[in-house]
Amino acid sequence: MSDFQIDWQREERTGTAEAILCDGKTAGQIAAMLEAAAGRRLLLTRLSAEKRAALPDALDYDPLSRTALSGELRALRDSGIGIVCAGTSDLPVAGEARRTLAFHGLDAPVIADVGVAGLWRLMDKLDRIRGFRVLIAVAGMEGALFSVLAGLVRAPVIAVPTSVGYGVAEGGRAALSTALATCAPGVVTVNIDNGFGAACAAIRMTAAGRGA
Amino acid sequence: MSDFQIDWQREERTGTAEAILCDGKTAGQIAAMLEAAAGRRLLLTRLSAEKRAALPDALDYDPLSRTALSGELRALRDSGIGIVCAGTSDLPVAGEARRTLAFHGLDAPVIADVGVAGLWRLMDKLDRIRGFRVLIAVAGMEGALFSVLAGLVRAPVIAVPTSVGYGVAEGGRAALSTALATCAPGVVTVNIDNGFGAACAAIRMTAAGRGA
Amino acid sequence: MSDFQIDWQREERTGTAEAILCDGKTAGQIAAMLEAAAGRRLLLTRLSAEKRAALPDALDYDPLSRTALSGELRALRDSGIGIVCAGTSDLPVAGEARRTLAFHGLDAPVIADVGVAGLWRLMDKLDRIRGFRVLIAVAGMEGALFSVLAGLVRAPVIAVPTSVGYGVAEGGRAALSTALATCAPGVVTVNIDNGFGAACAAIRMTAAGRGA
Amino acid sequence: MSDFQIDWQREERTGTAEAILCDGKTAGQIAAMLEAAAGRRLLLTRLSAEKRAALPDALDYDPLSRTALSGELRALRDSGIGIVCAGTSDLPVAGEARRTLAFHGLDAPVIADVGVAGLWRLMDKLDRIRGFRVLIAVAGMEGALFSVLAGLVRAPVIAVPTSVGYGVAEGGRAALSTALATCAPGVVTVNIDNGFGAACAAIRMTAAGRGA
Amino acid sequence: MSDFQIDWQREERTGTAEAILCDGKTAGQIAAMLEAAAGRRLLLTRLSAEKRAALPDALDYDPLSRTALSGELRALRDSGIGIVCAGTSDLPVAGEARRTLAFHGLDAPVIADVGVAGLWRLMDKLDRIRGFRVLIAVAGMEGALFSVLAGLVRAPVIAVPTSVGYGVAEGGRAALSTALATCAPGVVTVNIDNGFGAACAAIRMTAAGRGA
Amino acid sequence: MSDFQIDWQREERTGTAEAILCDGKTAGQIAAMLEAAAGRRLLLTRLSAEKRAALPDALDYDPLSRTALSGELRALRDSGIGIVCAGTSDLPVAGEARRTLAFHGLDAPVIADVGVAGLWRLMDKLDRIRGFRVLIAVAGMEGALFSVLAGLVRAPVIAVPTSVGYGVAEGGRAALSTALATCAPGVVTVNIDNGFGAACAAIRMTAAGRGA
Amino acid sequence: MSDFQIDWQREERTGTAEAILCDGKTAGQIAAMLEAAAGRRLLLTRLSAEKRAALPDALDYDPLSRTALSGELRALRDSGIGIVCAGTSDLPVAGEARRTLAFHGLDAPVIADVGVAGLWRLMDKLDRIRGFRVLIAVAGMEGALFSVLAGLVRAPVIAVPTSVGYGVAEGGRAALSTALATCAPGVVTVNIDNGFGAACAAIRMTAAGRGA
Amino acid sequence: MSDFQIDWQREERTGTAEAILCDGKTAGQIAAMLEAAAGRRLLLTRLSAEKRAALPDALDYDPLSRTALSGELRALRDSGIGIVCAGTSDLPVAGEARRTLAFHGLDAPVIADVGVAGLWRLMDKLDRIRGFRVLIAVAGMEGALFSVLAGLVRAPVIAVPTSVGYGVAEGGRAALSTALATCAPGVVTVNIDNGFGAACAAIRMTAAGRGA
Repeated sequence: MSDFQIDWQREERTGTAEAILCDGKTAGQIAAMLEAAAGRRLLLTRLSAEKRAALPDALDYDPLSRTALSGELRALRDSGIGIVCAGTSDLPVAGEARRTLAFHGLDAPVIADVGVAGLWRLMDKLDRIRGFRVLIAVAGMEGALFSVLAGLVRAPVIAVPTSVGYGVAEGGRAALSTALATCAPGVVTVNIDNGFGAACAAIRMTAAGRGA
Repeated sequence: MSDFQIDWQREERTGTAEAILCDGKTAGQIAAMLEAAAGRRLLLTRLSAEKRAALPDALDYDPLSRTALSGELRALRDSGIGIVCAGTSDLPVAGEARRTLAFHGLDAPVIADVGVAGLWRLMDKLDRIRGFRVLIAVAGMEGALFSVLAGLVRAPVIAVPTSVGYGVAEGGRAALSTALATCAPGVVTVNIDNGFGAACAAIRMTAAGRGA
Repeated sequence: MSDFQIDWQREERTGTAEAILCDGKTAGQIAAMLEAAAGRRLLLTRLSAEKRAALPDALDYDPLSRTALSGELRALRDSGIGIVCAGTSDLPVAGEARRTLAFHGLDAPVIADVGVAGLWRLMDKLDRIRGFRVLIAVAGMEGALFSVLAGLVRAPVIAVPTSVGYGVAEGGRAALSTALATCAPGVVTVNIDNGFGAACAAIRMTAAGRGA
Repeated sequence: MSDFQIDWQREERTGTAEAILCDGKTAGQIAAMLEAAAGRRLLLTRLSAEKRAALPDALDYDPLSRTALSGELRALRDSGIGIVCAGTSDLPVAGEARRTLAFHGLDAPVIADVGVAGLWRLMDKLDRIRGFRVLIAVAGMEGALFSVLAGLVRAPVIAVPTSVGYGVAEGGRAALSTALATCAPGVVTVNIDNGFGAACAAIRMTAAGRGA
Repeated sequence: MSDFQIDWQREERTGTAEAILCDGKTAGQIAAMLEAAAGRRLLLTRLSAEKRAALPDALDYDPLSRTALSGELRALRDSGIGIVCAGTSDLPVAGEARRTLAFHGLDAPVIADVGVAGLWRLMDKLDRIRGFRVLIAVAGMEGALFSVLAGLVRAPVIAVPTSVGYGVAEGGRAALSTALATCAPGVVTVNIDNGFGAACAAIRMTAAGRGA
Repeated sequence: MSDFQIDWQREERTGTAEAILCDGKTAGQIAAMLEAAAGRRLLLTRLSAEKRAALPDALDYDPLSRTALSGELRALRDSGIGIVCAGTSDLPVAGEARRTLAFHGLDAPVIADVGVAGLWRLMDKLDRIRGFRVLIAVAGMEGALFSVLAGLVRAPVIAVPTSVGYGVAEGGRAALSTALATCAPGVVTVNIDNGFGAACAAIRMTAAGRGA
Repeated sequence: MSDFQIDWQREERTGTAEAILCDGKTAGQIAAMLEAAAGRRLLLTRLSAEKRAALPDALDYDPLSRTALSGELRALRDSGIGIVCAGTSDLPVAGEARRTLAFHGLDAPVIADVGVAGLWRLMDKLDRIRGFRVLIAVAGMEGALFSVLAGLVRAPVIAVPTSVGYGVAEGGRAALSTALATCAPGVVTVNIDNGFGAACAAIRMTAAGRGA
Repeated sequence: MSDFQIDWQREERTGTAEAILCDGKTAGQIAAMLEAAAGRRLLLTRLSAEKRAALPDALDYDPLSRTALSGELRALRDSGIGIVCAGTSDLPVAGEARRTLAFHGLDAPVIADVGVAGLWRLMDKLDRIRGFRVLIAVAGMEGALFSVLAGLVRAPVIAVPTSVGYGVAEGGRAALSTALATCAPGVVTVNIDNGFGAACAAIRMTAAGRGA
């Protein structure tokens, strides 16, 4: 009996495709999945450089976001989704979201380093940020960006708390609790460091606007 | 100096109006806010029956959801938002979401008691559920409904973990961690028992589909 | 042997006087302390209305902040300390700080309801806020106010997380972790709901500026 | 005095044999135990490849489950126990259960990759799964499989939460709380990653049916 | 649309019937469910004396375990299940298990007050305890009974940690962690205070022995 | 678009300059920031020796505190700030505070190894300690130094809990809770191991004394 | 079968007698135990005034410590045990220890209100404190007293953290972690508010000195 | 100024000598302390083999317990202290206790591998165990040994929870909560893995018996 069965119908059923979370899988298991895909498109997340080196050359691998795209790449079209990022250390998670969107054929810019300790950085870019239909906000530490941002825009704000920080912020718990306890309604959140999940939710949201 | 300043511009700025969270406020403070509103529309959440009794008669009060609507009620139009509810004990939170939507003029039906321990209850209603553009899922205990539901539909699923349960589920922590750790991408979550926040996010999402 | 010994030398030694934390003490114990004081000045904190009713009439009691001042009141002088408060529900804690300062003869205004979900409320009052030498910031929920405020002013910001909120914010933990994990340097924090401690620290800080 | 005393009577007394948990023991300590066994049958769990390399060649070692069987192997007979596994990353823990059963002479198949995000995978195999008298369910992330499975079958479901996942799922806590808070009665749970314990409990349960 | 749909097929499908968890439900909601049952058998758990007083007289109510049986009672037959209880304060939870078994027509004795601080109490009754095919062990505080018991018998041990205790034992967390971390294989656990779930699992286990 | 935008105005706006937290940033990202600084002064914190080796030679690097100063060094003037340190293992965090002050041109001595287990060590130095206008107290384990110190001096005490310790002290949580729960008013705290933040707060406090 | 079996042999076997923890027991259950005692000596702890009122008049009840002594009282002899108490609010727990010792015929004085925020209070009494052979130290809030005391004396220090405090100290967790993480060797701890357990341990310790 | 000041008076003042906790100190810092000792006796704990290799040859180093004794060794005399150990993996912590006692000139035997899963192992040695005046009990996993042991002996039982275990036992928290929540009075506890502290407390206890 096979050890895995990829849910190929997921994109048809839910609008976003199954991805392979490579953490906790051996390079051998991942290679077997790629072989079973037989050229069908696959997204790999949390793929370390070490494991990537043990896989076929054909992968489109991005080391910062630790994502790989296998199979035919789709042309990118404007998605209406913007990714807002509090600090430089949050870029790997923002990158996972951006790459997941790209895998689904959607282009989404990253607005970097707009943490609220220097509020002018966010304010300078507010007009541009207000132009997006869905916002993915990526922040670690205390995640105050989520609340401030949601109070200034009309788009839904998908918070992605990151594990950036130390002490009580270690592992992302402080940013997560901010996303959940926010005084600004309209914020929803996903798991810590889950750029992939935020992108999938954003895809569902943009589809929601077009009717079911 | 006044002790409060209501953010009347919030609906214009963000698409959803400020609400008064009545927990932690005295009946006197709430009455002062209603007076300051001077007939403008206000939503009150977490308003106990005791405090409601100390307020003016004109309020439209719902004891199950502990919400009150003040000012002119809007006519309801179809929102494309559905509220799916795991058990009878989750109905107060589902009601807070439904009433928040109604305050904004949006009608949203509640599909009750479809917890996954008897999966047929969800399956029987799946066609109807698939017809919504945005889903609010309300569940306590372990919250497995969030994952199962998101794997079956295309709409974004806003999880509202509830504080229904005991032992490790006490206070809603187990359902919250399920919403965050879910294996089904497309789930986003709000704070425990936060039906109001889920409704506000849903409003943003339906707007998102129509362009900014 | 007596059950208590009041540290009358504390104000001489540390700059702030000992106070009686009334939680966990019986009215009888508190009355005995007042009697032992024999007219000397005493501050009582967390004194419920029920216990206050069982004590001598001479107390200057404030029900919102649950504080009482016993003995001669000092005339108030300008302290350079400002108290900034995120929401109406945080006023009891802000009040404990204000009353503690008043007990020490210091006047400190409260700037109320400037939570960041409506950022304009804070911005409108920023010039006034920038005029204080020390700021006490009082906020519950997610406490994003601490970070935003500290990024805009030169004064030290003493965060007082409050137990206002529910779900992950219950008991004040979310606001506390924001105060600690803040990306804005210059924030220091005290225990949840500890308006008394914040005031004592503020007194030490204003003294610090005048040399030792 | 010896540093250890193996509980050789345990299988006679309780129905399952003592095993050596190799985490936290040095290769030297493990080797001494094997020598003391003097050919008697022993099961070793959580034995890393590094430590295994320092032990005698005669061991039957399985690197995925990190288990070793020492001494005479028993012929396998049908156990009526099935192992259901949510994802590929859960296979090491499922393997520890399977190997523990094999050590006791019991054969148990593994039904792999039936996580509920694609519910059809579980439904396709439901007839087969319903044929088992005892089920061991192995899942990480949010562990929703436990609830769904228990609502569909008559067998007791022994949940084994795994440490697969990140953020709030890190270390297996989210899956554990799902197993405990489940709305589906009939689920019992063991410690995170404890495939060994689940197998021992399953052995007791199948024996329970035959009378004491 | 009705607010509830009772899963009448559950006993046929899983071997144990759905029960009504009365915590978090109003007396009105419970009364509506009883009316919908129309004489069919129902088990009610966590039913306070106050709510029971608001319900029809026909209920068979037990105040210690806070359970009620509605509809025709089944004759009791020997179940092979024994309930072992560490202290007097654990009897309500033990009672919930006993009553759940009785609702399913199964008789199960309670062996009370055998906590390990006086080990002779357990030892005196060991022969009797060894005669059961399945054991439900109910203990609060540190729950050491679970480990000691499982090391002495062949039956599966279903631990039910109770919320009896204070300090680090408050809410049952210490007993729960003992059940999970036990050094004695063969222990499985359910949620804190979940006597109902333990009984349901025990029913599945005794059925497991008779083949599927 | 650039991945970062340094908040050069922060010192003007808040009194302390932005620093680069090097944890979670690649050497490449840090090098790009140094290049963008173009000779302007920058403080780097949590810079490992490995990353430092990949950066330009001109840095003034201190391996114990893992800090680097880039650009022109300021001459040091007396700050009135003293750093009190409980044990030798706390010196790296004390060093981060000292170096942050030095970056801002302020000299601050470190009083080392005055933990309260041998109270005479603190008492011997009390006269000197009482001479400072602001105190930074650095302690791990249980952090009892914070309370004892604050009861003996008039200066504000900024507690810096450190991650020194094991068991319940692991990661600094025990020392942090002591700082927050202290019975000695006048203690404020920053995040675990946050010597940088303590120094920034101390700078604000000394400025507070001189008027705004 | 009886619901309880009192461990009358415990004093003979372990040196201290079994006590009845009245929390979680009904007045009826407690009365049944007193009746079963038939005049033998019994200690009752955590007995509320309400329950006491429902019990026989013969009890020697102390409302502050919520303890009752039943049966013949022993004459008190000097125990060499001293009870040191940080604050007035800790007196109920100190009282439980004192009464437990009295039940065993041992006299132990309480040295009250020597919290370290005013260190002179402890120092003034140090000579007397050094005269005890075993010390029970009772403190809530941050519990710094445990460390300071243990660094000054030769006796073993049994820490009893109390649930006095709020915020992070709520429920006694901060004081407990101080007791465990203390930098002063020689401190041992018992559960939060467990004055009874501390007294039992102290009795064993004083016996230890006389040989077994 | 020196970075450390060893508390040489501690043994005179408290009965046990200061030790150097080597975790978190560099080999250079440790070497400086040894040099400052100038031949005086010192105990080093948590000294890794790597650091030991960088220190002078004269140390008496034990790799299992990671302790080193410097200076003149004392002759061992019988202490009346026994060390009881649940499993082989707990021996390093038991060793730290044994070596600390040896440093103070006290001999204490280790009774190994008497975990309660096989209760006969403890019972076989009970007579010997009952001969000690003070018992140190070392256990990880769920720590049930603490409760069982204390119910069988008259000596004080110092529990040392160890970090042996996984899942909910990880880091020693489950064993610690058992030690604190135990139903067997007479158990006191120290921090997780703190063999050193247990030994120091045991020394104080044996001294307590001989008068102050």
